[in-house]
Order: sequence, then structure tokens, then C-alpha cells
Amino acid sequence: MQSVVLIGAGNVAHHLAKAFSACPHITLVATMARDKKALVDFEAFGPIASLGRPITADIVVIAVSDNAIATVSGQLQGTNSIIVHTSGSTPMKVLSQHKNHGVLYPLQSFTKGRELTYDEIPICVESNSTDTLYKIKQLAGYISSKVVEIDSKKRFKLHMAAVIGNNFTNHMVYLAEQFLQEEKLPLHLLVPLMKETVEKWEDTSPYDAQTGPARRWDTDTIKNHLAHIKDSKLRKIYTLLSQSVQETYREKDNG
Amino acid sequence: MQSVVLIGAGNVAHHLAKAFSACPHITLVATMARDKKALVDFEAFGPIASLGRPITADIVVIAVSDNAIATVSGQLQGTNSIIVHTSGSTPMKVLSQHKNHGVLYPLQSFTKGRELTYDEIPICVESNSTDTLYKIKQLAGYISSKVVEIDSKKRFKLHMAAVIGNNFTNHMVYLAEQFLQEEKLPLHLLVPLMKETVEKWEDTSPYDAQTGPARRWDTDTIKNHLAHIKDSKLRKIYTLLSQSVQETYREKDNG
Repeated sequence: MQSVVLIGAGNVAHHLAKAFSACPHITLVATMARDKKALVDFEAFGPIASLGRPITADIVVIAVSDNAIATVSGQLQGTNSIIVHTSGSTPMKVLSQHKNHGVLYPLQSFTKGRELTYDEIPICVESNSTDTLYKIKQLAGYISSKVVEIDSKKRFKLHMAAVIGNNFTNHMVYLAEQFLQEEKLPLHLLVPLMKETVEKWEDTSPYDAQTGPARRWDTDTIKNHLAHIKDSKLRKIYTLLSQSVQETYREKDNG
Repeated sequence: MQSVVLIGAGNVAHHLAKAFSACPHITLVATMARDKKALVDFEAFGPIASLGRPITADIVVIAVSDNAIATVSGQLQGTNSIIVHTSGSTPMKVLSQHKNHGVLYPLQSFTKGRELTYDEIPICVESNSTDTLYKIKQLAGYISSKVVEIDSKKRFKLHMAAVIGNNFTNHMVYLAEQFLQEEKLPLHLLVPLMKETVEKWEDTSPYDAQTGPARRWDTDTIKNHLAHIKDSKLRKIYTLLSQSVQETYREKDNG
């Protein structure tokens, strides 16, 4: 059993509040934000409060935007709780003024209003002491079966890989959708293709899963595509990525 | 009931031979290639033969690389069958020397040795006549429940969208994996994140699904990431895609 105070009013905080409040091993003492009014959507998950109220909980989870973590941390001086943040790219040491501190980083892309199976989301944990790490692991283990111990350096790389492999891929699909819309074709035509690709990542590797004109060194099709892309930024993206694929495989093949 | 001759020895031909031979409504008369020896893996699906043998079948399916379609088509002069190709980016008119011709384009990324649920793969069809279109639709309908009538112009755009939205995203994940490997982190840590993103494409849209530093205009994290990317091509890709995301949303938010 652990008691938790959660700080934040964004998507990550919202999903965590929901997961914490649904767990029988966690007491969500309060969710806090600078302005309590931002927490209207959080009332279903337990008490809400303005930041600045005294805090009594085993763990305080700071789930605010990266550039606000240090400020919030400063406002928690005198708190004896374990203080953790939830950021992928912020080093743990930003919390070093607190005796017991660490990180609880859920590796997921949070969108408001979407249901998530929290149990399958990897949670990366880190701490400045063994005892504290044990407690952070315990809290993470209450809501996920995939708890991974990862230090700040590795977490930074993991977050960067998620930006490249997930945020940017999402944007590529947005760009692809623009072409489809010109022809009134629905995106769902592409979804079976993409699902198969994600399954390949599980079973084989992105290296082996690569297909397409650049992979085949089919320069006629590449030129033909480029001739039909009006937007200069997308032409640059198309060219760069085709070159990158070609250089990855180098040898010509007709596969 | 339809009789089919299939021409080709690559991944698309292999998957089609498998699907055709498994279907009770299709007689796969033969699979052909320039050199019969390339068809060793096809023997389980029915007779194999060298191209040049006389052909008697309702439909001849040319499943060869884009730049070989015209040559193969030329070798089929005098054949009365319906002639179709399976290419996303080749116009139908490359087959116009044949009285009855068309396209049967399965929208999937084929990798040898992987099982596919053909029924869920969209098949895009086109023809020069109503009667022939009916027969091509029938053949496509035997192996998939998602048959879509799409002309050459739309098919070209669809193929280009698949290259951008699927081939390039796969390569982005390959690039992301390189970072993970530096830290001995497994790619499967990212897979739940990506699965959730694909599900978002089905339920909402890539526009609404976008998250990450560029979406948040978190320029500190972007700079920090760029400082840690050694490869100059990847730095360019990261910069371009971040700019493209930022321009897509324009207005700053802290979401």
C-alpha cells in the first residue's frame, strides 16, 4: 500500500491519476496543480488541491512539462516524501535537493480521452538509493507489469528513439494522409499495411521489414514520386529518407 | 471459378501464388518466370513453367518488378486472356496492347516467409472495360474482402502515400533502433507505444495523435536531442521533421 500525491494537469497526469485511483494498492491523496481550476477533469479520481498546500504522502509524482519540473521541485522543499518526475528527457539530478528522489517514466504517447491498457506500458524507473528505488518500483509495479530500471543517460536515448520512431512516424503518416485526401482516399486503406509493419518489428526487425522503391533502388519510381510532390519541405524529406534507406542497404537488389 | 497464370518469382508473386492455390474458386494453371529455376519455392502451389510457353487462362497476373512489366507484356502478344499487373505506381496503359487488361494491386508490404491474412488486405482494381473489370473484381474478391476500384492516378498517389507513411516510417524505426542498440536497449520497449499510435490512426487521426517535443514547441529538448545525434544525415532528418511538425500546428501549446 502506498499513498501518492500527483502534481500536474496535462495528459500524463490525467492518465496517471486514472491508473492510480483505480489501483487498490494506491491511495491517491490528492492531485495538485498551480491553479486548482485546471483540475476539473480530475475530480473523479479523488481530491484536488492547489499547489502550496502541505503534502503528506509516501511518493510525490511530478507530471508537469519538462521546463516546469525544477520550479515545482523547488516548491516541495521540506517535504519528506520520495519525489519523482515522469519525464523521458530530464535527468534525475534535477530533483537532487530532495533526500529521496527518482524517476517514474511511462513510455507511452498520451492523448486525452483515450483508454489505455496501462499494464502493457513499460515504466522506466531510477533512483538515488536502493530503498527508494524499491518503493518506486513497487508503485510502478502496481500499475504496469513492465517495470524496467534505466538510468538517466539511457532514458534520454530511449526518449529520443521514441521521438524518432514514434512521433516522427506519426507525422509521416499525417503527410501521407494529405496525398490521400487530394484524391478523396481514406487513410484506413493504409492501416492493414501499417499493422503488418508493426508486427514485423516484433517478429523480425525494421532492417528486414524494409520494402519500397528506395529499398529496391528503383530510381525511376523515386524520380516519378518526387515529380509529383509539390511541397518543397516534403520533397526534401522524401529525398533524405530515400538516400538514408539506400545507404543503409547499399548493395542493389531487386527484392 | 477462374483459371489464372501467374508470372513472377518475387515476394508479391510468392504471396499471390499461395493465396490463389489455397482458394477453391481459383485454378492456378501455372506460375511462370523467365527462368523456371527461380520458382523452386513455388512448387507447392502448383505447376511451374518457363515464360514463353503458350498460355490458356482466364486471367494472366504479371507480378514482376515495375521496370519489367512492359517487357513481359510484350511477350504475351497473341494471348486472349485478361492481362493485369500488380504494381502500385505503373499506369494501366502499359498493358494497352492487350484487348482486355487491367490492374490488381494488393496494398501490402510483402516479406518472404511471413504469413498474411489476405482477407484484410485492400486490393485496388482497375480495367479498360466493364466486363473485364467485373472479372478482375471477382478474382480479387476470392482472396480479399476489401476490393476497391481505383484508377491509375489515384493508385499512384496511394502508392506514394504508402511509401511515405509505411516504408519511410519503417526506416525511421530502424534509425531509432540504432540509438537503442548503443545503450543495449531492446526495440520491443517501443512497440506498445507504436501499437497505440497505429490504433489512434484508426480511431482519431494522425493530426490529433501527434505528441512529442516538436508538437509542444519544446525547443530545449529539440536542441538537446540534436546535440546528441552524431550522424549528420539523421540530424538533418530530425531537424526537417521537427520543423514540419511545428509548422503543421503553428500555434504554441503546452499540451
